[in-house]
Amino acid sequence: MPIYTPPQKDMEFILHDVLKVHESTTPGYNELEPDFTGAILEEAAKIARDVMAPLNEVGDREGCTLENGVVRTPTGFQDAFDTLREGGWTGLDCDPEYGGQGMPYVLNAAVGEMQAGANMSLNMYPGLTHGAYSAIHAHASDTLKTKFLPKMVTCEWTGTMNLTEPHCGTDLGLLRTKAEPQDDGSYKLTGQKIFISAGEHDMAENIIHLVLAKIPGGPEGVKGISLFIVPKFLVKEDGTLGARNGVACGNLEEKMGIHGNSTCVMNFDDAEGYLVGEAHNGLRAMFTMMNEARVGVGLQGLSQAQAAYSNAVEYARDRLQGRAVTGTENPEGPADPLIVHPDIRRALMDQKAFIEAGRAFLLWGATMIDAHHRSDDKAANGLVSLLTPVMKGFLTDKGFECTVQAQQVFGGHGYIEEQGMSQFVRDARITMIYEGANGVQALDLVGRKLASGGGKNVMAFFELIKGFIKENETNEVLKDDFLAPLKAASKDLQAASMFFMQHGMKDPNAALAGSTDFLHLFGHTCLGLMWAQMAKAAQESLDAGTADEKFMQNKLVTGRYYMQRLLPETGLRLARIMSGAAPVMALAAEDF
Amino acid sequence: MPIYTPPQKDMEFILHDVLKVHESTTPGYNELEPDFTGAILEEAAKIARDVMAPLNEVGDREGCTLENGVVRTPTGFQDAFDTLREGGWTGLDCDPEYGGQGMPYVLNAAVGEMQAGANMSLNMYPGLTHGAYSAIHAHASDTLKTKFLPKMVTCEWTGTMNLTEPHCGTDLGLLRTKAEPQDDGSYKLTGQKIFISAGEHDMAENIIHLVLAKIPGGPEGVKGISLFIVPKFLVKEDGTLGARNGVACGNLEEKMGIHGNSTCVMNFDDAEGYLVGEAHNGLRAMFTMMNEARVGVGLQGLSQAQAAYSNAVEYARDRLQGRAVTGTENPEGPADPLIVHPDIRRALMDQKAFIEAGRAFLLWGATMIDAHHRSDDKAANGLVSLLTPVMKGFLTDKGFECTVQAQQVFGGHGYIEEQGMSQFVRDARITMIYEGANGVQALDLVGRKLASGGGKNVMAFFELIKGFIKENETNEVLKDDFLAPLKAASKDLQAASMFFMQHGMKDPNAALAGSTDFLHLFGHTCLGLMWAQMAKAAQESLDAGTADEKFMQNKLVTGRYYMQRLLPETGLRLARIMSGAAPVMALAAEDF
Repeated sequence: MPIYTPPQKDMEFILHDVLKVHESTTPGYNELEPDFTGAILEEAAKIARDVMAPLNEVGDREGCTLENGVVRTPTGFQDAFDTLREGGWTGLDCDPEYGGQGMPYVLNAAVGEMQAGANMSLNMYPGLTHGAYSAIHAHASDTLKTKFLPKMVTCEWTGTMNLTEPHCGTDLGLLRTKAEPQDDGSYKLTGQKIFISAGEHDMAENIIHLVLAKIPGGPEGVKGISLFIVPKFLVKEDGTLGARNGVACGNLEEKMGIHGNSTCVMNFDDAEGYLVGEAHNGLRAMFTMMNEARVGVGLQGLSQAQAAYSNAVEYARDRLQGRAVTGTENPEGPADPLIVHPDIRRALMDQKAFIEAGRAFLLWGATMIDAHHRSDDKAANGLVSLLTPVMKGFLTDKGFECTVQAQQVFGGHGYIEEQGMSQFVRDARITMIYEGANGVQALDLVGRKLASGGGKNVMAFFELIKGFIKENETNEVLKDDFLAPLKAASKDLQAASMFFMQHGMKDPNAALAGSTDFLHLFGHTCLGLMWAQMAKAAQESLDAGTADEKFMQNKLVTGRYYMQRLLPETGLRLARIMSGAAPVMALAAEDF
Repeated sequence: MPIYTPPQKDMEFILHDVLKVHESTTPGYNELEPDFTGAILEEAAKIARDVMAPLNEVGDREGCTLENGVVRTPTGFQDAFDTLREGGWTGLDCDPEYGGQGMPYVLNAAVGEMQAGANMSLNMYPGLTHGAYSAIHAHASDTLKTKFLPKMVTCEWTGTMNLTEPHCGTDLGLLRTKAEPQDDGSYKLTGQKIFISAGEHDMAENIIHLVLAKIPGGPEGVKGISLFIVPKFLVKEDGTLGARNGVACGNLEEKMGIHGNSTCVMNFDDAEGYLVGEAHNGLRAMFTMMNEARVGVGLQGLSQAQAAYSNAVEYARDRLQGRAVTGTENPEGPADPLIVHPDIRRALMDQKAFIEAGRAFLLWGATMIDAHHRSDDKAANGLVSLLTPVMKGFLTDKGFECTVQAQQVFGGHGYIEEQGMSQFVRDARITMIYEGANGVQALDLVGRKLASGGGKNVMAFFELIKGFIKENETNEVLKDDFLAPLKAASKDLQAASMFFMQHGMKDPNAALAGSTDFLHLFGHTCLGLMWAQMAKAAQESLDAGTADEKFMQNKLVTGRYYMQRLLPETGLRLARIMSGAAPVMALAAEDF
């Protein structure tokens, strides 16, 4: 059975050596002293490794079952969920006014990677609750907040997001679920939603559904969408549970992975619901959930890569097969361990170099989300909005690739379910799809985020890179190995952005045909920047005479691998982008 | 449920317009007139589509079951297998002396793609039998051939390959299965083999296991390996079945995919076996199986890509979601079909451009195998030996990628098992692993095949490209769009080969660190060559006033896509290769 190795030390390096969160002026960050974050991460690591990870395979094997409208979760999930609740983990960064611990999101993100890495299916129950919490917190009336949030912060009640319908996923303008206004100000919702994660289960007293629906007579398309709270059990004035509401799970989907999470068809039949925010303005509220969820999904993709990678490393060290081509390295044994073979190392280095920079990228993004929420930093908000589709799309595409590479290290054993590597691949696969398939992320990036505010966010990103390079141009360790390739990647990204600006207005297809390539080009540039910053931090630490010399040296080694072998992909992506719309659009639909 | 769309027309184009098999001097190719191959492919297409494909999902869902040593295959498999047997499909290219139809392998390869694409798990039963047939046919005594081959040609008896043991897969020198010589010239085999596809099942009267084992007292390591025939039931002098032999299925593996094929742990306990070829020379005989199996696995990878792709195309045409950015294309409907969106087209074109050239590559390889077998063409044999790891490794890496991209087109629906796209991904995944994991293919290519015969095979490949470019340099259609990018790719491949030659002797890790990149660089160059040849054939057909103008025009369009957007990957691969061993080998094993 796979083990889970929490990347605590690496997280601490990113938080304190690279991002220097404890020196940040963001309100609340003064709490984030190394001792404090260390203690939190240590506890989180224990729970992830000892409580959640052992149930990962159980969840995959047993899955969820539906009987007479009741969904049963896998053996042990309830107990593990209780452990998370009792430790206050579900409300780590929630508003203290509603019972949360009020810690910065960046810390929650680090904890979240561990929890998702240990057991993604289980972690989705509190994860979706958090998304629903955020949307209610940001958009609902005080009455609704007071009524629902305290129990959601503790996960006594869990939350869901009900967007997709059988005939529409991305194109929400087509949705048909209706919300009829009632005399008392509430609504009656009727319709069917599909792919509802944690839509029904046996681990919470109540389930608070956030549902997109249309109020009859409203505007056509997405402008007529409103957001509603629809609880599974109605909640009485005194906060106790009343009658069962008109919402039920009609079916459970058989999926490729995340078997431990219940993916439900939800039927709403005159279900009582309460409007969140203004009527016909549901899309805005939904994007509060979606943006948070997208960063969270990027985190999931990364987390599966990390979990799979650490198992592949163990296997490569233990499994004896063949001899090193440069001479036996294990003369006592019948063969050398796999890790002596260059191609196995290449696969492991690919994963390691991606994972460590991907983690830095996500935690950096999290600091910007905190800066936005805690000090209304508009520049940070602009930049993280731009980067959100990159975090989601790039980190999940690459995260999935890593799980496949990790599985590959196991040879035939990787294909056997018992070994557990298949589950990482199957679970990671959904991260490329849900909360907006990665093609939709690319479209969001190129079609919306890039030009938003006249392109000021992408300009800020380029300035950031330029500033970093300028600031460190005399640093001999960084100069050739990190700054030069970063500059080249940034140049490729600028050329691609310029190409879109020049052609996009006349021929939008010219931009969209290159959107996935642009997302990857952008992602690589971000990770290149992260490696340059990590290299700088590692070198500073070495210069200061750190006791952890080897750890810091290895950062430089891994960073150089990324810059030399992975970052040059930006050139290929640019070449594809510059080929424009013609090759992509030339064939008639009937000729495929 | 997915459909299977046999790519018959495309196969005919490759066979007759591109490879011009009917004009070849290879013995037996004179049979391959367009009418004849058309009729065979038409029949094969019917069986693939109507008999095999409908059972694909059944096989995945039901899997195989083991009870009291008996393995039951999924519902309907037996009947479908009987249809294949009765139609003579199992012996299409087998030796007429043993009841085969004696047709060229190239035709069998085309038929094989259809059969694997329709139902990979089912097709593995006759597929493995064919591999065992070939090894026996090439290496066993006439007595053994006469005894076993006729029933294997008809698949009344099926075959297996028993190589892997729990502690060794790639490193066969470690194997422990023992073969004790008996007075009557037979052997008694004892040991355990794992991952034995079709090792036990209920669809054949007898199962003929080919088993690698060591005769006590023989040389150490791979030089002490011998190959044996071990039938499930002993065969009497008169050809009827005798006693059950000492071989049994100990367990069935739970796998990520190919559930319809039984993957067995096989226990040999004083099982009677017969030596194939010479003692201690089993590796050579095994490679007869392996080389055939590797081409076959490349075919499987391609077949899954084709099957997944054609379903993705259907879905992209049918599913209405969003509007074309350049203006509504389906004004009557609530939304436009997915296929209007550039990023969906990009995904489909990636698949299409790979699949069509991959198919040409495999069928070209098959003509070289025929030339070797039918007219002892040593140059053809040399070249196809060089290309075999590329066919296996590159086509399965990319084939798997295509299934993932095809699944992605379905969005959330692609993740639901009912839709069938997950199965293509899960089934295709094994092709990157078995018959030598793709890292082992890369090692074989760089460490063995490249330098074999002083590098004459790779030189022949370069000459072939050079000759083609020279011969067509005044062709205006080919010149800029096809020849120039092919030349650039070929230059990259030459530079990489040169780098390996210069550094490989001094530092073998410098070559091996780039082996997977080299395999992909080589694969892209091969597919670039295929597209150049297909473009030439299409243009010739257009110039000759073909009635199928659109089909030929579309070949040019798809080829240009490959040359512009996919082939430039060779530059990135070369850059990685040139970075040498240092980045890959720098980290100590304990520092991963």
